Amino acid sequence: MNNNKEKLDNLRHSAAHLLAQAVLELYPDTQLTIGPTTQTGFFYDFLPTKNFKEEDLPLIEKKMHELAEKKFEIIKKEITKEEAKKLFAKNIFKLELIDAIPDDEPITLYCQGDFCDLCRGGHVENTGQIKYFKLTGLAGSYWRADKNNQALQRISGIAFFTQKELDDYLKMVEEAKLYDHRKLGKQLDLFSFHDVAPGMPFFHNKGLFIFNSLIGYIRSLIRDEYQEIKTPMIMHEDLWHTSGHYENYKENMYFTKIDDLINCVKPMNCPGGLLVYNERPHSYKELPIRMAEIGFVHRHELSGVLHGLFRVRAFHQDDAHVYCTPDQTEQEIIKILELAKTVYSKFGFKNIKMALSTKPKKSMGSDDLWEMATIALKNALKKHNVDYILQEGEGAFYGPKIDLMIQDAMGRDWQCGTVQVDFNMPINFKLEYIDSDQSRKTPVMIHRAIYGSLERFLGILIEHYKGRFPFWLAPIQARILTITDVQKDYAKKLMQELKAAGLRVELDQTGDQISGQIRQAQEDKLPWMLILGKKEQENNTVTLRYPDGKQEFGLTVQDLIGKINKELEK
Amino acid sequence: MNNNKEKLDNLRHSAAHLLAQAVLELYPDTQLTIGPTTQTGFFYDFLPTKNFKEEDLPLIEKKMHELAEKKFEIIKKEITKEEAKKLFAKNIFKLELIDAIPDDEPITLYCQGDFCDLCRGGHVENTGQIKYFKLTGLAGSYWRADKNNQALQRISGIAFFTQKELDDYLKMVEEAKLYDHRKLGKQLDLFSFHDVAPGMPFFHNKGLFIFNSLIGYIRSLIRDEYQEIKTPMIMHEDLWHTSGHYENYKENMYFTKIDDLINCVKPMNCPGGLLVYNERPHSYKELPIRMAEIGFVHRHELSGVLHGLFRVRAFHQDDAHVYCTPDQTEQEIIKILELAKTVYSKFGFKNIKMALSTKPKKSMGSDDLWEMATIALKNALKKHNVDYILQEGEGAFYGPKIDLMIQDAMGRDWQCGTVQVDFNMPINFKLEYIDSDQSRKTPVMIHRAIYGSLERFLGILIEHYKGRFPFWLAPIQARILTITDVQKDYAKKLMQELKAAGLRVELDQTGDQISGQIRQAQEDKLPWMLILGKKEQENNTVTLRYPDGKQEFGLTVQDLIGKINKELEK
Repeated sequence: MNNNKEKLDNLRHSAAHLLAQAVLELYPDTQLTIGPTTQTGFFYDFLPTKNFKEEDLPLIEKKMHELAEKKFEIIKKEITKEEAKKLFAKNIFKLELIDAIPDDEPITLYCQGDFCDLCRGGHVENTGQIKYFKLTGLAGSYWRADKNNQALQRISGIAFFTQKELDDYLKMVEEAKLYDHRKLGKQLDLFSFHDVAPGMPFFHNKGLFIFNSLIGYIRSLIRDEYQEIKTPMIMHEDLWHTSGHYENYKENMYFTKIDDLINCVKPMNCPGGLLVYNERPHSYKELPIRMAEIGFVHRHELSGVLHGLFRVRAFHQDDAHVYCTPDQTEQEIIKILELAKTVYSKFGFKNIKMALSTKPKKSMGSDDLWEMATIALKNALKKHNVDYILQEGEGAFYGPKIDLMIQDAMGRDWQCGTVQVDFNMPINFKLEYIDSDQSRKTPVMIHRAIYGSLERFLGILIEHYKGRFPFWLAPIQARILTITDVQKDYAKKLMQELKAAGLRVELDQTGDQISGQIRQAQEDKLPWMLILGKKEQENNTVTLRYPDGKQEFGLTVQDLIGKINKELEK
Repeated sequence: MNNNKEKLDNLRHSAAHLLAQAVLELYPDTQLTIGPTTQTGFFYDFLPTKNFKEEDLPLIEKKMHELAEKKFEIIKKEITKEEAKKLFAKNIFKLELIDAIPDDEPITLYCQGDFCDLCRGGHVENTGQIKYFKLTGLAGSYWRADKNNQALQRISGIAFFTQKELDDYLKMVEEAKLYDHRKLGKQLDLFSFHDVAPGMPFFHNKGLFIFNSLIGYIRSLIRDEYQEIKTPMIMHEDLWHTSGHYENYKENMYFTKIDDLINCVKPMNCPGGLLVYNERPHSYKELPIRMAEIGFVHRHELSGVLHGLFRVRAFHQDDAHVYCTPDQTEQEIIKILELAKTVYSKFGFKNIKMALSTKPKKSMGSDDLWEMATIALKNALKKHNVDYILQEGEGAFYGPKIDLMIQDAMGRDWQCGTVQVDFNMPINFKLEYIDSDQSRKTPVMIHRAIYGSLERFLGILIEHYKGRFPFWLAPIQARILTITDVQKDYAKKLMQELKAAGLRVELDQTGDQISGQIRQAQEDKLPWMLILGKKEQENNTVTLRYPDGKQEFGLTVQDLIGKINKELEK
């Protein structure tokens, strides 16, 4: 699988070069910058002499096909720094890249026909292998993603090995558009966005119900084993110097002044949580201490990349920090992975993937600690018998981690959960516990989130369920429809009885024809329609209609309550 | 009652003058500023030549008694502005006050012996009537409560008509100190404060449980009739110009920059909520629309006045806004008062007081609107048959309101709830509904909160209950104590059974003697102790011990579950 991923990456990387080659053929004075692969495709950032327009993309795509058919061999060349600088003398971006390459590292070019690009490589053998691709978008970007730098234009595309894969992907994208959570969010009255707060969702009643249900669900799972805390949103900069966020994360943070002192709106929950741990001394007997926080965090994102609930500036994390002894680490990680599996399967996510990232070149903490933590993570993965990707050297400088990916109903992967061992914070915040021999020890700290961002998870769920939430999560579970107004009193009585039984039920008040009422309930994606006509009223029964059109006749209130309980057990 | 309050106010106001007179006798060069009454007493703010110390208070109090015994008549004198300025020529504070008096208003002095003070009056007849008082505190303050102004010293005191009232009050204060929520909050591990966030509580597990239970309780009451929404914490200044907060509330707000634009941390929830109302058009058929928000707001307070959970800079409101037709206003206010009574009585608060504030001199909105709203509020008060205070002219400029006061177990009054009609926001935000004749109308907007600040309400509850929360609200409802370790397995089995039945129960793991375990459970203020000894184990029963020492023997698990359900019905 790793091998396949590498092959696909090479293909897409080559497609990016092909794109750059085509652009230069058509618009020779364009300046190239960089062109990496992404999770599903590739892009190249250009500085054009005249801005590209959407209608240029088919032309560029056509040129790419022409160049591909020439089957240019893709050749790697090693050159000196001097040669590289001469070659790219007119391109300030490439010169900046060349300058950043350490003197002891080789500089490589990849060339096809008369086109060469500065590149570390990973390519297919010749351009003829790049057959199944499509340019998918044109957008603004900035050099090094910094809005203070030169504005650029990004052309994005996708590439696959077969026509079928390309077609499937395009079909999936079309389907995903139909169920775009931004569209469904409006249609189902779940949330809105407003100009006064870009990237900060306003939850409406139904959206908030689901949001709170997600919180309620994870709370119910961890109640016995976790403490839950709540720390302030705004705290003095001192805290963020201690944690290192001020030094390493400043550009993503918002600041405010209180009593003329710099305060930070929290981008993460850990520093506040650590203060609670340090409120009193802890004995080894208390460990593991598991502290959860549904923490509301703010992180700056460029306005151009904001995207519904998927990419926001304000979101809630189902965060938790576990403090334990080194011996307990493996067991704690196992428990977290178990919890994650329970949660994900509750929502019908299958094919959970995990990725283990290990010690990078630059790191802190002793080798012993790294080995202990990495083995603990590996053993936990083994115990769970999951397929995992090993990302050697890709851990954070402060510890190794596992990322958890889920696959939605449309086959898309989403990274949601994370389990991260941290050797840094316990030292910065002088965490301690008293061991059995009375000595003071530093606990191991594990950060973990299962949903990740609750807002994003809700967005994923909306698309995953195509707006039709399962019974336990649906803000409205049933609507009572009456064939004529004669049944209205019966309908109200029935509604009261079902509400008392805990059903979230409402009454269609439109006075529309029954066919119209059914259509509306379909559009509102309700799990149940309870239809009352003359016969139902006479027999004190209900006809239960499902979204797929199936109907069950002659149900009593007791029958319905039985069905409610059955639905909730699912 | 109003009459009594006025008399008491006069007494306390005279006590403040007596304090000023005594201070001038002892420290003749002290500059006087102002000396008003408070809810329970009075204070005077001084600029001394040399700072007062705590040990000066008994001396000043003694001098006050001496002057009181001289039974100086308290005489009102009208003087001209010129005379006033001459009299207070050396006092810049009094000069500033004199300058602020409109030319057509009389200037009055109140004199006793050779002491005169600038004063609007309301006094007892002679100083001999000021007998039962006590100086209670010395603190820093600022001229006009603005920290950019001259720093002053405030001496506070209390005064009553009888020795018994004074004694009772002092006893209540002593008792309240015992149950200070800051002390109990630490002892019961409910919350903490940290230097990096003054006035912003960190909730620990148990405190958060109660906090969340308060939210859960009010949600359960309003679920059927309210929508619940959630709006962002940080929004662009435009919104706050529209709402008027930027112009009128700026000094209490925190600001941050996003994309180089000024954004405000919300001090109130209404503006965000109004955007949600305006998300789509509304028909008169939908009204009343009731939108609740458990809103997290930040409001600046001077660091000197921060006080545990009572006075904070960050808190949650159980806020709601009702949008209705003029005709529906009275009914909606009645419903809100009903809700408030339900909530307050759930916590055992008795003697709920209400105060109606009516149209002030400066106001907006037509006379018709004011009359409609004031009558609606009055009628609602009448329907509830509650004693209320009429505060003529004390409404906000944008509408009349009712304030709701509760009395705690120690007899202290707390203003918590509010019901406020608002003619301003619906206009600023162009709120509309389509009436039955298709015309566009502006809805009436009612703001309401029952708890007020959840943080403050929690603080009040801690003191009201003296830390011993009722069964339904106690984070831990029971602890299992074992007489010897032999019962540990039985204890664990019992704990699982009771947890399954929904009881929040834990096991004493200390291994202490049973007497020590009982003492600890008492200190932790748990509702139930479940004691297991040899006999209980043999018979598969439990001894239930209450905090008052009463015990019930031979209870089965079924008996306990019955008792749990009974406790929860209370």
